[in-house]
Amino acid sequence: MDDAFARLPSPPYYAVIFSSRRNGHDDAGYGEAAQRMVELAASQPGYLGVESTRGADGFGITVSYWESEEAIAAWRQHAEHAATRAHGRVHWYEHYELRVAKVERAYGKPEMKSRSPE
Amino acid sequence: MDDAFARLPSPPYYAVIFSSRRNGHDDAGYGEAAQRMVELAASQPGYLGVESTRGADGFGITVSYWESEEAIAAWRQHAEHAATRAHGRVHWYEHYELRVAKVERAYGKPEMKSRSPE
Repeated sequence: MDDAFARLPSPPYYAVIFSSRRNGHDDAGYGEAAQRMVELAASQPGYLGVESTRGADGFGITVSYWESEEAIAAWRQHAEHAATRAHGRVHWYEHYELRVAKVERAYGKPEMKSRSPE
Repeated sequence: MDDAFARLPSPPYYAVIFSSRRNGHDDAGYGEAAQRMVELAASQPGYLGVESTRGADGFGITVSYWESEEAIAAWRQHAEHAATRAHGRVHWYEHYELRVAKVERAYGKPEMKSRSPE
């Protein structure tokens, strides 16, 4: 299946919805750090997946998925992640919003689902 | 503030996270319908806001925000919305996933928040 889509278990699970506007500075540094954070997140306990996109206007949405609120809290406290967030607040983002949500129901385009019962 | 960001009340509220891959067909028809759906959604009871973006690769994420699950259910049953979804499944999307979540906590970039207490 299309790698942009997260392969997730059945709900419930948790989502961190991060919407942001890039300030147009330091594309190379930002790109490298974003890639590193995706890889680091994927190695954390309770990580389930991520979906992310950004338009040509610099507005982007990243949704990461987690087994529990405890997993989200642990990732938030990860030292390298915290340092990268602090750097990003100053250097990369004009603005951002972050929302933590509990996913209760999920549906996919039926004929394309790779996780249908066999 | 930046119009791409939804101006939302304090949680709790609900999010519909729609991630999709466009199939590259019918950009004009898709664009017109997407704009119409944004306007129609905004006129529904319980609608709070929307954030949406799509990358050059055709992968996009739209998150709409609602006061309640009842508001989401009513929007899902709206006749024009249902007809547009049915058209989109066949003509516009290679794949999509939809997740309904309850937002429990929210944070913004502190120095940019327009809704800070005065």
